[in-house]
Amino acid sequence: MKSNAGDRNAWSGRGESGRLRKAPENFLSAEQVASVSSGRRDFLRGSFLTAAAVLGAGRAVAAEAPQGEDVILKPQPWATTLGQPVAAAPYGMPSKYENALMRRQSPGLTQVAGAGVSFMPLQGMFGIITPSGLHFERHHQGWYDIDPSKHRFMINGSSPDFVMKPKVYTLDDLMRFPSVSRMHFIECGANTGMEWGNVAVPTVQYTHGMLSCCEYTGVPLRTLLEDCGADLKKAKFVLAEGGDGSAMTRTIPIELVLSGEVMVAYGQNGEMLRPENGYPLRLVVPGVQGVSWVKWLRRIKVGDQPWATKDEAVHYVDLLPDGQHRQYTSIQETKSVITSPSGGQMLLDKGYYNVTGLAWSGRGKIKRVDVSFDGGVNWVEAVLQTPVLSKCLTRFNVDWKWDGKPAILQSRATDETGYVQPGYRMLREVRGTRSTYHNNAIQSWKVIESGDVSNVQVL
Amino acid sequence: MKSNAGDRNAWSGRGESGRLRKAPENFLSAEQVASVSSGRRDFLRGSFLTAAAVLGAGRAVAAEAPQGEDVILKPQPWATTLGQPVAAAPYGMPSKYENALMRRQSPGLTQVAGAGVSFMPLQGMFGIITPSGLHFERHHQGWYDIDPSKHRFMINGSSPDFVMKPKVYTLDDLMRFPSVSRMHFIECGANTGMEWGNVAVPTVQYTHGMLSCCEYTGVPLRTLLEDCGADLKKAKFVLAEGGDGSAMTRTIPIELVLSGEVMVAYGQNGEMLRPENGYPLRLVVPGVQGVSWVKWLRRIKVGDQPWATKDEAVHYVDLLPDGQHRQYTSIQETKSVITSPSGGQMLLDKGYYNVTGLAWSGRGKIKRVDVSFDGGVNWVEAVLQTPVLSKCLTRFNVDWKWDGKPAILQSRATDETGYVQPGYRMLREVRGTRSTYHNNAIQSWKVIESGDVSNVQVL
Repeated sequence: MKSNAGDRNAWSGRGESGRLRKAPENFLSAEQVASVSSGRRDFLRGSFLTAAAVLGAGRAVAAEAPQGEDVILKPQPWATTLGQPVAAAPYGMPSKYENALMRRQSPGLTQVAGAGVSFMPLQGMFGIITPSGLHFERHHQGWYDIDPSKHRFMINGSSPDFVMKPKVYTLDDLMRFPSVSRMHFIECGANTGMEWGNVAVPTVQYTHGMLSCCEYTGVPLRTLLEDCGADLKKAKFVLAEGGDGSAMTRTIPIELVLSGEVMVAYGQNGEMLRPENGYPLRLVVPGVQGVSWVKWLRRIKVGDQPWATKDEAVHYVDLLPDGQHRQYTSIQETKSVITSPSGGQMLLDKGYYNVTGLAWSGRGKIKRVDVSFDGGVNWVEAVLQTPVLSKCLTRFNVDWKWDGKPAILQSRATDETGYVQPGYRMLREVRGTRSTYHNNAIQSWKVIESGDVSNVQVL
Repeated sequence: MKSNAGDRNAWSGRGESGRLRKAPENFLSAEQVASVSSGRRDFLRGSFLTAAAVLGAGRAVAAEAPQGEDVILKPQPWATTLGQPVAAAPYGMPSKYENALMRRQSPGLTQVAGAGVSFMPLQGMFGIITPSGLHFERHHQGWYDIDPSKHRFMINGSSPDFVMKPKVYTLDDLMRFPSVSRMHFIECGANTGMEWGNVAVPTVQYTHGMLSCCEYTGVPLRTLLEDCGADLKKAKFVLAEGGDGSAMTRTIPIELVLSGEVMVAYGQNGEMLRPENGYPLRLVVPGVQGVSWVKWLRRIKVGDQPWATKDEAVHYVDLLPDGQHRQYTSIQETKSVITSPSGGQMLLDKGYYNVTGLAWSGRGKIKRVDVSFDGGVNWVEAVLQTPVLSKCLTRFNVDWKWDGKPAILQSRATDETGYVQPGYRMLREVRGTRSTYHNNAIQSWKVIESGDVSNVQVL
């Protein structure tokens, strides 16, 4: 990991560790003070003050500035030159100074070409929307940039009893149907999976980064089933099948489809899906683990029993303490995590911090989030950022004044059903430590006197 | 403009014209039928059907497919090969098939290096979120990728009466303050400006593309003014000053700041602002025209009267019929536009269409949107996509069955204050035709028998 501890005046960046800076680093250096001189006359009025006024400023979080409306910051090169032309990039990219904010593969996971994971950099992100370029990836056979004119989507039944008029749709067909747009989180069932037994990875990018949240647009699957004359009373399950070589197939209960929430989606954050996210078509199954959001979707089959495919019979099952497997655990239970301060970051001073994080529930809206600074003894209620949407990430913020002593930061979410996010002790009593999937335990970040923040488990 | 009319089986794309396709184009060709053969055995069960079943399928929007759960679409190359590896791109990009969905400069505007406009491609977009890569641009002196470690933000007063403790903040300083995230539209005051007098440009990208909508994160300006000991009773206005060479300065009424809505923003759609959008700091002034959302923000000055800077005394003023200028017209009034079907597109068949568009108001939430298919004689209420947020784009959808005859499509938005979007006749009676700014008239798209859609004005 990169460190910029030796460069106290450098931008801390929003990248790998998202290092926080303490107040002393924010005082103006001599070099900085020089940049706060009055460098030009105000266009409309005239008097001057000098940089000396700045040098006399007291110490605060920010440097004090001189009074008077005509004192301005010394013009930088960008104030005295012509910038880049408009539309220099027909499709824009982040600043070169933000190139550490990227999705990453975990050093703790085996990296197989075409079958791996890249994690979203939560530690440096804001709000609830995941820009598509930072959306996490989980591929089983690599990703494809499929020619949409060659892609077909079929709906049929296990037998003619289930679907009267099986059909094959082109993408243009699908785009003529009534569409809906909704914001939802997607979380891999294996997110935080490495943490079941013990602390496994250092940063929130790796503990919780198989998580993203976008605005999806598409056609409700229910609309398409009706278009095919599906018997929605006889149907109990649908099978979603992906077009890639991993033969990804997942059983989905018909109730989720009948609610209108399951969507055959082509849009993501205003534009077409990204290739890594299933372009040109993926299933969106709000509240359900990511593996069911089948990418490069090519078929929905309607039937009356689960199909027990490899991806639900062998993978994505929870090994319980008694040796049995818990299967078809599709709903992602209530969960939350503090994204800043978080593991790998460093508090560089005592004082005020805006503690922020994300909460989500596969069963509906987040109702409240409590935050503890002492490992779960005392809790304060965080402020939920609006809008709070169903099966969508919710950003929370809470004020904290660090006294320089050791602290353990935790967040605990409650959803609208009343479900409260469990701690590790409670979760392990029921589910043991040998599962890979569906770990929604309370995450703990430990702060020590040096200001270093690290991943710990509190039982 | 590109045309793909001769290539009936090609993906219509979401780009320049966003061509719509009619049902006949969606029937399977012989080549396509061949791709709907049963190409492999089901993993779990065994029987086969042949492509012959497809050939017997009747004509519908989509092709009929054979019955039976073991009939699958013929595997394409992406089903039999290993795809691209995970994290091949640490920061992902759109599909190569979507490269026509891009921001563009208007052929009708003078293009000056560093001072121009690029428009958002509304005709091919979904939902309400603008991906940052497609955010419209309006620069007055070009754009800069400013080193954030060198950027400073100052707050002071016209006199010491207004700000007790003027300060200079680094970006790290600002990030330690309590933050908020909110979704808001931004619209250039000159959006649709070329249409005041007559039809000027062919597509919705050029009529309405100086519009975007993102989730912004930052510190309420009110919080920072309080941190500087500003006298919020004495203050009547603030002046926002940009760091670029255009000396962009705009007066903002203190009421907007006191409401807590005005934000000193560093975040956009989950990551840092894009360079073209003011990285690392811009002002967010919800509901107000884009020019006040000062980019590369370097100063806020507090005072008790408007500053009458060049960008409010000479530019962004409305020339009225009596020769006077209407000044300080900052709020963007209620407006809407149908984005599909829209100018430059073509309806390739009669029948059902999902008519969709966007509505917004600088004064709060959109309350309803009505759509007319006969140039304003009859209206039907559209469905508003949730969430409907204040000073944010709202997506609307409405069903339409085109009978193949000429039609004129219009949308008319009403906001929560009761304000109804005006037609051109009403707007011109009050404001004439010589303004460049603040045109929020009802947009009309004419459909002729051939299916061609074009920009027209209905008085």
